[in-house]
Amino acid sequence: MRATTIHGTRDIRVTDVPDPTIQEPTDAIVRVVAGCICGSDLWPYRGENDITPGETIGHECVGVVEEVGADVSSIRPGDFVIVPFNHCDNTCVHCRNGVQSACVNPGATETGQAEYARVSQADGSLVATDGMPDEALIPALLTLADVFPTGYHAATSAGVRDGGTAVVVGDGAVGLFGVLSAALLGAETIIAMSRHEPRQRIATAFGATHIVAERDRAATAAVMEITGGVGADAVLECVGTDQAMQTAFRVARPGATVGFVGVPHGVELPVRRMFGRNVGLAGGVAPTRRYLPELLERVLAGGIDPGLVFDLTVPLDDVAEGYRAMDERRAIKVLVRP
Amino acid sequence: MRATTIHGTRDIRVTDVPDPTIQEPTDAIVRVVAGCICGSDLWPYRGENDITPGETIGHECVGVVEEVGADVSSIRPGDFVIVPFNHCDNTCVHCRNGVQSACVNPGATETGQAEYARVSQADGSLVATDGMPDEALIPALLTLADVFPTGYHAATSAGVRDGGTAVVVGDGAVGLFGVLSAALLGAETIIAMSRHEPRQRIATAFGATHIVAERDRAATAAVMEITGGVGADAVLECVGTDQAMQTAFRVARPGATVGFVGVPHGVELPVRRMFGRNVGLAGGVAPTRRYLPELLERVLAGGIDPGLVFDLTVPLDDVAEGYRAMDERRAIKVLVRP
Repeated sequence: MRATTIHGTRDIRVTDVPDPTIQEPTDAIVRVVAGCICGSDLWPYRGENDITPGETIGHECVGVVEEVGADVSSIRPGDFVIVPFNHCDNTCVHCRNGVQSACVNPGATETGQAEYARVSQADGSLVATDGMPDEALIPALLTLADVFPTGYHAATSAGVRDGGTAVVVGDGAVGLFGVLSAALLGAETIIAMSRHEPRQRIATAFGATHIVAERDRAATAAVMEITGGVGADAVLECVGTDQAMQTAFRVARPGATVGFVGVPHGVELPVRRMFGRNVGLAGGVAPTRRYLPELLERVLAGGIDPGLVFDLTVPLDDVAEGYRAMDERRAIKVLVRP
Repeated sequence: MRATTIHGTRDIRVTDVPDPTIQEPTDAIVRVVAGCICGSDLWPYRGENDITPGETIGHECVGVVEEVGADVSSIRPGDFVIVPFNHCDNTCVHCRNGVQSACVNPGATETGQAEYARVSQADGSLVATDGMPDEALIPALLTLADVFPTGYHAATSAGVRDGGTAVVVGDGAVGLFGVLSAALLGAETIIAMSRHEPRQRIATAFGATHIVAERDRAATAAVMEITGGVGADAVLECVGTDQAMQTAFRVARPGATVGFVGVPHGVELPVRRMFGRNVGLAGGVAPTRRYLPELLERVLAGGIDPGLVFDLTVPLDDVAEGYRAMDERRAIKVLVRP
């Protein structure tokens, strides 16, 4: 099959690789209907994560089940499914505790930007829609594979609550879903930090009540002014850099929690500040599967348009252009059609 | 008056200093009935915190109100009061949010090991008993000035819950109160990390169901065995060293929270582990005043004996011997009688 592979810094290709096959009786093979490029794919793209040249890249997709292993009972060939980027059995002690990202039978989508993908623990991982969804719904459903539940995890980890104030650091797709999630959880004041007009527009469409375009100390000052000098009840850190993390802690009110979902790169946590101001940190790799049923219901109920984050669609053959567009911030999030 | 002062590493003296006086109309002067030495006093004692030679030391006491400022209305001369180590107005935006340690009108007890102490924001800070307590209750009441609410803050920050598993790292007085607090909050399995037999005994009296005497990797293995390989639902970090913090994160199950109350010294938080396993961190300087009413009620109701932690009592003149005994771990906590 054709799959996206990475060969070095900013070297993305479409390559013929062996079709994925059932390896365990709990596996399923999914024909990818739509995949996409994740902000975290840009780390290896930019050479900031180690790679093995020629390895596949891409972990977000939706599609139609092609084949299932002998032990798969709840998912059938022909089902349209959301494929969470992290697979889980959804029955182990950590899954039952709501931390499916720490499943004792873990797995991950490895060919989300390709024609087919193998899913381990298909019964636990996959969530099927009732029948085939409308074509127009595909982008919204695709966000459920990673970015929407990841933004939602930032919001729940930060303890966003009804009537409270939330600050979202980061205006990538995950940050934008942090805004939407804060709105869904009832935050009254939602401050999105963004300097890019197209992202500001989506943030506002998703429920942001304020946009802060400043950075660092000026950003802190702006949030303090909006919150009457108090700081935010909940802060969503959706980037993963040290700069974003320090900003997150500076705008948090005493007793608040920073919910973090950006893979940390060079982050040094300000432990003395955390101690002195009682600002906690929670979050991590999103337990996608935990949130999937409720978020799918939200998407199907309408009234929100998560698909807005896809501002560029490319055929699989042009996936390298999709990476370039995201790297140069010409696109927020790129949908890939095999 | 006579007060404890510090002059250098391991140089504690009793010195004549000016009597504290009302400086603000919200102040009160308390005649100290009993004070004590805190584990955190050992940081400057051991030269690990900077000091100004000759400055007073000691921040925990109970006593009788001697005089109040013109604006103090709820506390009267003659009241027996618990003096929280951190003062607060208990009305500001942070106090109302339960983070009295971040009060906008902060203050701290500066002469807790002395004859008198000045308390700022007396109305907000002080909690009076109904009448004069029995002499036998004094040690238990004295724990309410700092160590008991601090241990309780570790437990609530860690999210200890009914029927859950809690690990307490640290067998100082705060750690022991972490054990007692976990028991009060309903934890079913309470694992105290302690290598010292007298402390193990108190931990057991306070509700520990298991004692782990090992350290580092061996301690982790012991906790994993007790918890069936899962890890603890809640971890209380009551030391403040990097070693204690790393142990705390290693024994936490995915999705757990480490509640920390030990002033961090050289701590580097394991952000990648926290992210990968969704283990959060919460806590900080205890909002003593927040917990005082409920903990005072617990003490007066009987059935617990917080005064157990005081295994040495010295007259004020011998306070230096009290420091030596704690420094050499011959005493768990030392009560000082002016």
